[in-house]
Amino acid sequence: MAEATKFLLPESEIPETWVNLLPDLPGTRAPPLHPATQEPVGPDDLAAIFPMGLIEQEVSTEPEIPIPDEVREIYRLWRPTPMHRARRLERVLDTPAHIYYKYEGVSPAGSHKPNTAVAQAFFNKQAGIKKLATETGAGQWGSALALGCGFFDLECEVFMVGISYDQKPYRRVMMETWGATVHRSPSDLTEAGRSQAEHPSGSLGIAISEAVETAAGSDDTNYSLGSVLNHVCLHQTVIGQESLKQLELAGEYPDVVVGCVGGGSNFAGLSYPFVRRNLRDGLETRFVAAEPAACPTLTRGAYRYDFGDTVGLTPLMPMYTLGHDFVPPPVHAGGLRYHGDAPSLSGLVKEGVMEAKAVLQTAAFDAAVRFARVEGIIPGPEPAHALRAAFDEAEEAKRAGEERVILIGLSGHGHFDMSAYEAFLAGELEDLEFSEADMESALERLPEAPALT
Amino acid sequence: MAEATKFLLPESEIPETWVNLLPDLPGTRAPPLHPATQEPVGPDDLAAIFPMGLIEQEVSTEPEIPIPDEVREIYRLWRPTPMHRARRLERVLDTPAHIYYKYEGVSPAGSHKPNTAVAQAFFNKQAGIKKLATETGAGQWGSALALGCGFFDLECEVFMVGISYDQKPYRRVMMETWGATVHRSPSDLTEAGRSQAEHPSGSLGIAISEAVETAAGSDDTNYSLGSVLNHVCLHQTVIGQESLKQLELAGEYPDVVVGCVGGGSNFAGLSYPFVRRNLRDGLETRFVAAEPAACPTLTRGAYRYDFGDTVGLTPLMPMYTLGHDFVPPPVHAGGLRYHGDAPSLSGLVKEGVMEAKAVLQTAAFDAAVRFARVEGIIPGPEPAHALRAAFDEAEEAKRAGEERVILIGLSGHGHFDMSAYEAFLAGELEDLEFSEADMESALERLPEAPALT
Repeated sequence: MAEATKFLLPESEIPETWVNLLPDLPGTRAPPLHPATQEPVGPDDLAAIFPMGLIEQEVSTEPEIPIPDEVREIYRLWRPTPMHRARRLERVLDTPAHIYYKYEGVSPAGSHKPNTAVAQAFFNKQAGIKKLATETGAGQWGSALALGCGFFDLECEVFMVGISYDQKPYRRVMMETWGATVHRSPSDLTEAGRSQAEHPSGSLGIAISEAVETAAGSDDTNYSLGSVLNHVCLHQTVIGQESLKQLELAGEYPDVVVGCVGGGSNFAGLSYPFVRRNLRDGLETRFVAAEPAACPTLTRGAYRYDFGDTVGLTPLMPMYTLGHDFVPPPVHAGGLRYHGDAPSLSGLVKEGVMEAKAVLQTAAFDAAVRFARVEGIIPGPEPAHALRAAFDEAEEAKRAGEERVILIGLSGHGHFDMSAYEAFLAGELEDLEFSEADMESALERLPEAPALT
Repeated sequence: MAEATKFLLPESEIPETWVNLLPDLPGTRAPPLHPATQEPVGPDDLAAIFPMGLIEQEVSTEPEIPIPDEVREIYRLWRPTPMHRARRLERVLDTPAHIYYKYEGVSPAGSHKPNTAVAQAFFNKQAGIKKLATETGAGQWGSALALGCGFFDLECEVFMVGISYDQKPYRRVMMETWGATVHRSPSDLTEAGRSQAEHPSGSLGIAISEAVETAAGSDDTNYSLGSVLNHVCLHQTVIGQESLKQLELAGEYPDVVVGCVGGGSNFAGLSYPFVRRNLRDGLETRFVAAEPAACPTLTRGAYRYDFGDTVGLTPLMPMYTLGHDFVPPPVHAGGLRYHGDAPSLSGLVKEGVMEAKAVLQTAAFDAAVRFARVEGIIPGPEPAHALRAAFDEAEEAKRAGEERVILIGLSGHGHFDMSAYEAFLAGELEDLEFSEADMESALERLPEAPALT
């Protein structure tokens, strides 16, 4: 039999700490600002909707944060996740590159999202909270939180964007199977929902408002977010830490790490442990953040203070943004349709530690189908963007005649996205246009805030 | 951290041979008979639609059959599959039993089916065949064969039961993503299909006829079957062999092995390596075959010679049957809706080596939802039947106050079956009735054939 293809770790190798990149981040650190006062946000401002355990993580300057045993106990149901050497893909791409992918689709929810959902459920349970409220678009995050809450006997209330609720009933059923209650948003359960009754299709912005309102209005209910924030990126670093060990088993170290970026937590989770090595040891690994050309936050956005949500309830965060009320075209990679990016990741791009690359969705699906036919796994539309960028790296390695090591974050499977594959195979997938004019106009509506340097 | 939950094997532990139980089977061996002459079927009778490599396996009396390197190379993409100790489930069931499940849902197609699809594609490729034709109902087998053919650059033509083709477009898209051509059956591509134009919903029987006709009419096209036959059960024994090693890692040996049975290949694959130990070493492990109460072949059927397909094209096989033209009620476990069972497995039940148990589908889904909420994985409707039977075993262990070791075959996930969960959660899932009268009438239409002892 040929050389190793799959690199597995025993469950004793599940990381014992999360990697907090904050103390190592280069550049000046701009704090999040209160939306009304524009003063730096303090723990008390967040305490209405987050438990103190997570607030401490959000602002911690400790480089390592212990993972509670109760969380590692749950991680063991699917972690450590496998890393594969894509030998069959290397052959069809005819590249000297060594291509590895870290596969998070083995989690019960089918993506990396449960890594943080479980942690957030635990810290809320510990704080005596009874229920978590959240929003979901296509349903990946909602199902992860439903799963996480189930493990800790927390109620879970999900506001699902109306049009997704109608078009993706199976994601809703998945959440219900794990015990969550799912509301079509806009609902008549909240002031925010009732005020938006004239937008029956809903939007992520409206759903966030409904979830935040639900949490803020109840002592035993908190809010939970699936990306962007520091503590969310933190929880995902189990991915990169395992990857480090698995590449060590393979006797390799990456020349380039590639992942897809919506809010940024998936790529942060994969890359931050490697980024820290780069920063501390002067290594030269490249980091490529792949984003949809229809929502090119990192490649075309402005580096400014902006709200995290559409309606402006959240703190102002320093990040690349297309404007908080920019509405991305409806590309199939629902998880990448976000106007901003995690502040930590935005800062790394700003400082030149990370590169960003915009990918057309037809090119992404073309890569995904080629990948599926040799490696078997059908990728989610989001990591399909990372695959496209990785294929380009493999091509480049071939031109250079170099045995470069490429590590790809394969963040989830596409079992609930087959309609997108159907459109692609039928030649009906469109490369939706990013509207520079819409962005310009959205940027004009950015809140007044200090400039970022 | 608590004791081990997950038992993983390195890829070097993928079995090097398949376990052939035939030479160890107790009782007299009744040969398959030619449908026209009722003479024992010889290799030449099968050569029109199967390659000699598989025909040899079908009749081999060698106890071990080597797995070609090319097949093991593909197995490595997902094998060895994980075995989990269901500690969280044990706690909620409050049972002293030790519950283990072997999970085949990590394969790209989401079930155990690729274990044989890849092997069948390989032996056909080796024989110079260019295309495989097959039928599929709900789509599990068709997607596995599409995947298998893709790995060996074989064309794959799938006749999909009309009503499934209309209701389960995502399984069709999955097959197409892997490169297969999918026809709605009855089609106008075959004589069999054209003759059934008045049954536009189609049936598995019609789809089999279309696939067999396609294979028989072309020199470079063969037919491929996803269960029942000896060589299919054989290929699945990688499951049980890995399970033996994994339980050894856990320091345990099963008191009872539980799996679901439609055509029988999944449970054969899990159990035969253990059955052989029982037979050779006089062990007393129990084997429980869980089948749907709506299609109770093993618990209510007759042990007789019957056709494998509805219209009577296949050899006559000795097995438990409800009659080849018995139409099982449309339970959600599409993979368990089969009138017969693998001859080898039927023989084991007849000889008392295996037990069979009929399970109502509401009871199966109740077990599946409880399982999903503590173990995370959402089971397919088929293994949900095995879970129900295993829960009963755990209950029995509790009554007896014994630390029994229960091994469950969790043959696949339910990502493409969420409509069934939706019906269950809404209280709309029916326990469809097995019609004894229909069976009686179907048994009256059994072919004339020698009696079985």
